[in-house]
Amino acid sequence: MSNPDTPRLSEILARPATRRDFLSRASALSLAIPAVGAALTSCTPNGDQRADSSGAAARSAQPAAGAAGSQDSLLHHNSDSRLDSAVLKGGHATGTSATHEGTERAAEAKYHRYDPTLPPPASGNRLQIHFHAREAPIRISDDLVVAGWTFDGDIPGPIVHCRVGDTVEFTLTNDSNIPHSMDFHAAQIDPKVAFRSVIKGQSVSYTFKPRWAGAFMYHCGTAPVLMHIGSGMYGAIVVSPREPLPAAKEFVLVQGEYYLGDTVNGARAFDYQKMLTTLPDFVTFNGRPNQYIKEPIRVKVGDRVRFWVTSVGPQHPCNFHVVGEQFDTVYLGAPPGSAIRGVQTFAVPAGGGMCFELMCDVAGEFPFVNHAFGHGQKGAIGILAVE
Amino acid sequence: MSNPDTPRLSEILARPATRRDFLSRASALSLAIPAVGAALTSCTPNGDQRADSSGAAARSAQPAAGAAGSQDSLLHHNSDSRLDSAVLKGGHATGTSATHEGTERAAEAKYHRYDPTLPPPASGNRLQIHFHAREAPIRISDDLVVAGWTFDGDIPGPIVHCRVGDTVEFTLTNDSNIPHSMDFHAAQIDPKVAFRSVIKGQSVSYTFKPRWAGAFMYHCGTAPVLMHIGSGMYGAIVVSPREPLPAAKEFVLVQGEYYLGDTVNGARAFDYQKMLTTLPDFVTFNGRPNQYIKEPIRVKVGDRVRFWVTSVGPQHPCNFHVVGEQFDTVYLGAPPGSAIRGVQTFAVPAGGGMCFELMCDVAGEFPFVNHAFGHGQKGAIGILAVE
Amino acid sequence: MSNPDTPRLSEILARPATRRDFLSRASALSLAIPAVGAALTSCTPNGDQRADSSGAAARSAQPAAGAAGSQDSLLHHNSDSRLDSAVLKGGHATGTSATHEGTERAAEAKYHRYDPTLPPPASGNRLQIHFHAREAPIRISDDLVVAGWTFDGDIPGPIVHCRVGDTVEFTLTNDSNIPHSMDFHAAQIDPKVAFRSVIKGQSVSYTFKPRWAGAFMYHCGTAPVLMHIGSGMYGAIVVSPREPLPAAKEFVLVQGEYYLGDTVNGARAFDYQKMLTTLPDFVTFNGRPNQYIKEPIRVKVGDRVRFWVTSVGPQHPCNFHVVGEQFDTVYLGAPPGSAIRGVQTFAVPAGGGMCFELMCDVAGEFPFVNHAFGHGQKGAIGILAVE
Repeated sequence: MSNPDTPRLSEILARPATRRDFLSRASALSLAIPAVGAALTSCTPNGDQRADSSGAAARSAQPAAGAAGSQDSLLHHNSDSRLDSAVLKGGHATGTSATHEGTERAAEAKYHRYDPTLPPPASGNRLQIHFHAREAPIRISDDLVVAGWTFDGDIPGPIVHCRVGDTVEFTLTNDSNIPHSMDFHAAQIDPKVAFRSVIKGQSVSYTFKPRWAGAFMYHCGTAPVLMHIGSGMYGAIVVSPREPLPAAKEFVLVQGEYYLGDTVNGARAFDYQKMLTTLPDFVTFNGRPNQYIKEPIRVKVGDRVRFWVTSVGPQHPCNFHVVGEQFDTVYLGAPPGSAIRGVQTFAVPAGGGMCFELMCDVAGEFPFVNHAFGHGQKGAIGILAVE
Repeated sequence: MSNPDTPRLSEILARPATRRDFLSRASALSLAIPAVGAALTSCTPNGDQRADSSGAAARSAQPAAGAAGSQDSLLHHNSDSRLDSAVLKGGHATGTSATHEGTERAAEAKYHRYDPTLPPPASGNRLQIHFHAREAPIRISDDLVVAGWTFDGDIPGPIVHCRVGDTVEFTLTNDSNIPHSMDFHAAQIDPKVAFRSVIKGQSVSYTFKPRWAGAFMYHCGTAPVLMHIGSGMYGAIVVSPREPLPAAKEFVLVQGEYYLGDTVNGARAFDYQKMLTTLPDFVTFNGRPNQYIKEPIRVKVGDRVRFWVTSVGPQHPCNFHVVGEQFDTVYLGAPPGSAIRGVQTFAVPAGGGMCFELMCDVAGEFPFVNHAFGHGQKGAIGILAVE
Repeated sequence: MSNPDTPRLSEILARPATRRDFLSRASALSLAIPAVGAALTSCTPNGDQRADSSGAAARSAQPAAGAAGSQDSLLHHNSDSRLDSAVLKGGHATGTSATHEGTERAAEAKYHRYDPTLPPPASGNRLQIHFHAREAPIRISDDLVVAGWTFDGDIPGPIVHCRVGDTVEFTLTNDSNIPHSMDFHAAQIDPKVAFRSVIKGQSVSYTFKPRWAGAFMYHCGTAPVLMHIGSGMYGAIVVSPREPLPAAKEFVLVQGEYYLGDTVNGARAFDYQKMLTTLPDFVTFNGRPNQYIKEPIRVKVGDRVRFWVTSVGPQHPCNFHVVGEQFDTVYLGAPPGSAIRGVQTFAVPAGGGMCFELMCDVAGEFPFVNHAFGHGQKGAIGILAVE
């Protein structure tokens, strides 16, 4: 059922490739490469065109030599190979996230708290979303701006909320010189088509119906995936069960890691080589170190609190814990099933999501943390204020 | 319901702070900072005074400039920031655990096996505990003494055992020049009050009733938490269900990591900078590398064995496995619920605890290990001798 | 019930040992050291002799000074101790896997895809297996040959498949100058006897009846275990429940890490010191980076797919995820029990195994990955082609 005109990812990747040879092939081929693949192609340069799992094909794109190299980096992912370095120093993928657009007017970037409140789900069983991929300087604390690669100009991208069985109509338009794509973990769909990369000015659209409830990661799947996730292209889609869970104050926490390199035009760049060390500078909930210490999450005594937690990594789990509390319920799979009870800490794997519930029957200021303090101390902490 | 006289942690932390400015504020303010906060304050210098979740307030303490800096390190947790280094080189928090008290007469420190046997639970539904925080040289093997920060002079601190719903009356008295605190993961309580730090000569007391069964971590929550856990201030409280679990030989294993620096007066110091590398020198069960190889845990054929396992980290999980055996039951949450069956290895997250059961129907010497051998080979191994 | 003539592992390990003293003891003693122990001894030099859990004793072996050192490394596992280095530079355990046999004719080593298909289970409730431990150059990609330590000449070793309650009769014959052993995680058996090490020309045999269904790791347990697992001595035994699971296409994925050092005779050696950094060069499914991108796993629309996944580490979990799909079922323990439902990603701990199921009702090319992209990008990726 896959489109016969579309070359198989496996065929493309199986060919021995040098960088030069890749560049010429890249210009000639329509590379419909999914989440984990490289990224040079797109549908037509029409922001509205839809593709879905029933198979709108990827079509020929313009050469995009400046963006090349991703292909090689998939084939040669050895962190210290010469090829990797060569690739990442070529074109736009230089191993740093710092681009003109991502650092321009960095000093003027305003800090804002990322609202962790789960928005209401889409009404009418249908949700239309249109994200733009673009670079932007993001102020993550009073004195630190990063050169972000973003969905809609923030890290994380917007929280998406729907219910099991809703129809999600999604479009990504790429405003960036770097190819990008979108992989929703809540979608069951052919990633070669739906999660393919698009270049500047082009769009990709697809439709999916989430089958399972949960906190699902979304992210750019363009190679090197590590670089795209590590530079900020991630977020969460929360899928609620059709039968509502018990009433609760619901919040979304997306744990991400920051690996920072040089400062360019006043913005710290994300650094690919540092990502490979797996020793982050910051670990954050919703993109800003310690933001919910500065401005806590506030609830009332008697509230049930439900945290939808994803760890986008790129590398580490979130060992989620609330100081002074225990979770009465942790859903390891889709709520309301797959629940365990009476838990101090549970690890949400990189690329995964879980749902944590507690009853706030004691007043106080309860820090929520990643309890792996080698990393947790680097910013993955906030305050749940129960008043 | 929180005490209006107590400054909010969020208020304190939100203020821009330089080290100098912090030191002056620290002297003037009553900083009731919880588990993850810094630590300069206390209740009155009265070892008996009780605080509980209904709100005994933190009150003004003496200036404690020597202990300052913790506050900054929370705000500026970037591992390679200048500020972090500055903070950790000031006062007592120099990035090393080596103090006079922690290294004095190190050569005379005696090795002892840490008894992993779960003691009987408190009788009469009430348990009174009084721990002292103090520095002490701890001999962890024939040829190695570490400069420990301890609860009651050992690493880990004493095993606490109670049952769901028991009343635990806890007091911590600080005998050390460094501020300390106590965070019981089994307590549901306002950490800003109960888990606040106290300085030398002062005490903090609180009462809690564990709601869930399980193996819960306890630890000093004074900032930098990484330094306090990493220097030995941790242990386990086991909460048994009111309805007894099947009869078993019960043991407690607390996995901890050792990051060692300079030798001072014959004792190796714990090294904060090394902790940030997340590459430990040793990973231990109950504080001593390989101690249960030297002196195994002994049971009889036909015994059911129940291991209450916590990983205190600070960073890594315990991938718990018994060579030559499988667990018939692992409780991911509170026993007797949340059980999975037929398991070779399961990961206890840093800051978490789980309960592992097996039937010893074969005689032999069964090594129990952290099966992540990059770390497990560093000491997290023992022998379960079935005779 | 353990054999009184066999020295206790705990007794052996408790003795203070210098390397010199160890070498002399090693020659004199019959060291029946299990999975985690060192490895100098064996049963008689008779390839057929059987031992089982009822107790065939280890007997005196020839001196094997060249292979010594393992014992010390267990006692002194501090990664940067002088002793460790000394040990690993002595005899065959030089900290590199490069031996004559493991590098000879490396250039002629042929690449082959490791077939991930689960073979049918043993018929007749009985399975006889005879593996040979031997060194061999293994081509893991077009341009890379590694100096492997192997079971039967491949990395991983052969897939073993049986059912709960089957009788597995296993023999390991050692064709290598380095002592080796076999630890089946599916066996309930005295490891001191069954998992003991044998030297060149000798064999060890034992019989076990798997009690629980699941994907179980097997590996060489000879010290340093990190070196033996890290050099390729691992594989998977899948134990199916007696009552068949729902019909499915079943595949086995063994995630392993490669830490590569010097090139010797055209083969890259596995490097013990690099293993201790826990930063692998490659993370692979079934021993070859990206092999199932080159040659995908192919199924049909409508197939249920069951992945039996083990992570042999030595250090890291496998955060298993299929791009564009969700698992309807993940068995955390023994199938058909211990199941959770509706999962995007779950972490299989190092030394553990889990079973993942999905329904392929959409055509496409679905990458399966370790979603910890700091490592996953290093080769733990393949394509599930649904046609």
